[in-house]
Amino acid sequence: MSWSPAHPETVFTYGAPQLKFGPGAADEIGHDLGALGATRVLVVTDAGVLATGWPDRVAGVIRESGLEAVVHDSAHVEPTDASLTAAIERARADGPFDGFVAVGGGSAIDTAKAVDLLLTNDGDLMDYVNVPVGGGRAPSRPLAPLVAVPTTTGTGAESTTICVLDVLDLKVKTGISHVRLRPTLAVVDPRLTASQPAGVTASAGMDILCHALESWTARPYTSYDRKQPDERVPYCGSNPISDLWAERSMSLLAKAFRRAVRDGADEAARGEMALAATFAGLGFGNAGVHVPHANAYPVAGRVRDFRPDGYPDDHPMVPHGMAVALTAPEAFRWTFAADPERHLAAARLLDPVGSHGGSGRGGEPRDVLPRVLVDLMRDIGMPNGLSAVGYGPGDVADLVEGSLRQQRLLATAPREVDGAALDGIISRSMQLWD
Amino acid sequence: MSWSPAHPETVFTYGAPQLKFGPGAADEIGHDLGALGATRVLVVTDAGVLATGWPDRVAGVIRESGLEAVVHDSAHVEPTDASLTAAIERARADGPFDGFVAVGGGSAIDTAKAVDLLLTNDGDLMDYVNVPVGGGRAPSRPLAPLVAVPTTTGTGAESTTICVLDVLDLKVKTGISHVRLRPTLAVVDPRLTASQPAGVTASAGMDILCHALESWTARPYTSYDRKQPDERVPYCGSNPISDLWAERSMSLLAKAFRRAVRDGADEAARGEMALAATFAGLGFGNAGVHVPHANAYPVAGRVRDFRPDGYPDDHPMVPHGMAVALTAPEAFRWTFAADPERHLAAARLLDPVGSHGGSGRGGEPRDVLPRVLVDLMRDIGMPNGLSAVGYGPGDVADLVEGSLRQQRLLATAPREVDGAALDGIISRSMQLWD
Repeated sequence: MSWSPAHPETVFTYGAPQLKFGPGAADEIGHDLGALGATRVLVVTDAGVLATGWPDRVAGVIRESGLEAVVHDSAHVEPTDASLTAAIERARADGPFDGFVAVGGGSAIDTAKAVDLLLTNDGDLMDYVNVPVGGGRAPSRPLAPLVAVPTTTGTGAESTTICVLDVLDLKVKTGISHVRLRPTLAVVDPRLTASQPAGVTASAGMDILCHALESWTARPYTSYDRKQPDERVPYCGSNPISDLWAERSMSLLAKAFRRAVRDGADEAARGEMALAATFAGLGFGNAGVHVPHANAYPVAGRVRDFRPDGYPDDHPMVPHGMAVALTAPEAFRWTFAADPERHLAAARLLDPVGSHGGSGRGGEPRDVLPRVLVDLMRDIGMPNGLSAVGYGPGDVADLVEGSLRQQRLLATAPREVDGAALDGIISRSMQLWD
Repeated sequence: MSWSPAHPETVFTYGAPQLKFGPGAADEIGHDLGALGATRVLVVTDAGVLATGWPDRVAGVIRESGLEAVVHDSAHVEPTDASLTAAIERARADGPFDGFVAVGGGSAIDTAKAVDLLLTNDGDLMDYVNVPVGGGRAPSRPLAPLVAVPTTTGTGAESTTICVLDVLDLKVKTGISHVRLRPTLAVVDPRLTASQPAGVTASAGMDILCHALESWTARPYTSYDRKQPDERVPYCGSNPISDLWAERSMSLLAKAFRRAVRDGADEAARGEMALAATFAGLGFGNAGVHVPHANAYPVAGRVRDFRPDGYPDDHPMVPHGMAVALTAPEAFRWTFAADPERHLAAARLLDPVGSHGGSGRGGEPRDVLPRVLVDLMRDIGMPNGLSAVGYGPGDVADLVEGSLRQQRLLATAPREVDGAALDGIISRSMQLWD
């Protein structure tokens, strides 16, 4: 390890929502909101999830418990300052609310966090957005209870304290980050992910895997300088608790990931993937993620005309999990030197019987984990590198520049990241297998 | 498994306090209480812990953050209705308070839960005590933030939603149990356990071990009938999350327990024991404990003249962890049939290299885990069975009767427990090794 702080950190923090997990859990939300003291509840979702019927079903069980419920399909996929402001204004017009439910993916959950924040605290959205883009203000009052009901296995938004948004005028992705934004209760009901097509399961699964693997390999909390209490951040680096969640998430993925992609009706595999997603979220929600997630911003954001299977084909996109995955093998080949044993342990967790490239036969130790990842990506139908989603050698500098903007994420990497390192990782990620 | 419910449970719940862990964590409590909105804080402790200086030091850091702080040594070891009522009345007289800190073992933390409950909600203590002893009333209002600062590694009270008390007139041990009683934040600072004598480390460590082992072997949540949302209890049986904490706790104990007893100055071992205690608490705080903890009530409660090393010698006592441990080997020999693989896995976690009786050489499979436990207990100076703390064959019926009163705990056992089963376990626990 290359870090040698003068006064090493000795303290780590861990926070998580309360959790209700299992088929049927979503039918108890009315009772849970009542126990949390809510009387009038806003259900936040997006138009796509609304069409599945689940948000109205959740509103129904809330009403059966004697509470009022209003449904807004006000979440925008990849929230922007404009979409969040519109969602907040719509909520204010229909308010007051003393409880919130988010039904959907990360976008719906993050939108609900912003709506809850601005309906319980004064000011405007930009007051709370991270500096330098916004005012970086901390909420002065507790938020109302927020129940997060993820419908895609992967984002981990149900466990985190951040709301990610694009500020359109500035063309920048930033966020609002405060411990009060963490949902009160996460309700993970695998029935809500039952309709995921194989391509979505594959991309979302790679997001889960990278949450686990990036928090597992994140810079250790003890490698930072001792923080003052008011300097503590939600992502404190890898620690004994985030390690535990990451390890178990990887073991579940080893067991269930290929099966869940192969057969969407395999309920056991789907349940294990939902658990893996929850565990990975509980881990990275405290440790942080790094290089693959930083790279995913420009890889997704600068898409030209790639249209993946299983997603709406009305616009080009690189799904988030796929964007994360495409540079992961090379990112972990580069981070290997920071802690070889940890990378080899991850390979063993992901490939316990050594049948997927992890047996260590032949090659350098630093190639073992990348080989396990590439073998998996090929099996589940990921594109063969950045070139397969439309990027070429001429795009490397642009992608590096976009990744370098994600300093908040790169700060969690186990080695100091500079442009040259990213250039190498991204260049070598153009094609992942022959 | 002998359970075959008509409609098996599909849902489990998981709750935990936020956590701050590590040397130095206790010095940040003022900041943390401020962030939680507190302005005037009551620090609850007992006379023994007060003498260590830590409660006043904590009150000092609270005042440095600009908050008011008052210290009460109002906790009684093994709280009673009388001691809790006195603590509540003293707090009311010095109130109001909008934040609470407990510095101490389970008794101080449970006392603070009761004080917080009765200062934020109407009524009297007995209104909230579990039926049939009390009124079983649920708190109608949220409690004020409670920061739990354990000074003994073991109790897990910082993670649980219960307050245990003796009702003196009825000579019965009961509790108050509600999710609102769970502390908001647990601050685990291994410096606060640095002065523990070896005998205390040994007994407290056996309590940690039994928390982990009992929640790991507890009746699985899927073996119960499907509950309605308002029937859910804090202890839902073993589940994938409590398993995770229990497993890791056992691995940490395998590494650190003997070292921590042998050398109280071994800081690494002490840190690992504090982490093991925290993890075990997070596990059993959701899954539950069973036979050894049920037996511990009469074993501790009916003591005659045993005086253990490392504890004040002004009165006879069987320390809680020791009382739990003494029937554990025989309890796990009896529960073995419910899930042999799980018992063997526990033996491997506690004795990974097979050097402490867990190698499985010779004997029946059901003897492997008991042999690992007995080997450990001998090494760390536990008494050789119930006879070594003063009980004889003539006491068995009385101990069985006391254990049978703990139906709330016995309900979590992986086999149906009756008097005959307890008679066998207790009789065979009189002497554990030759």
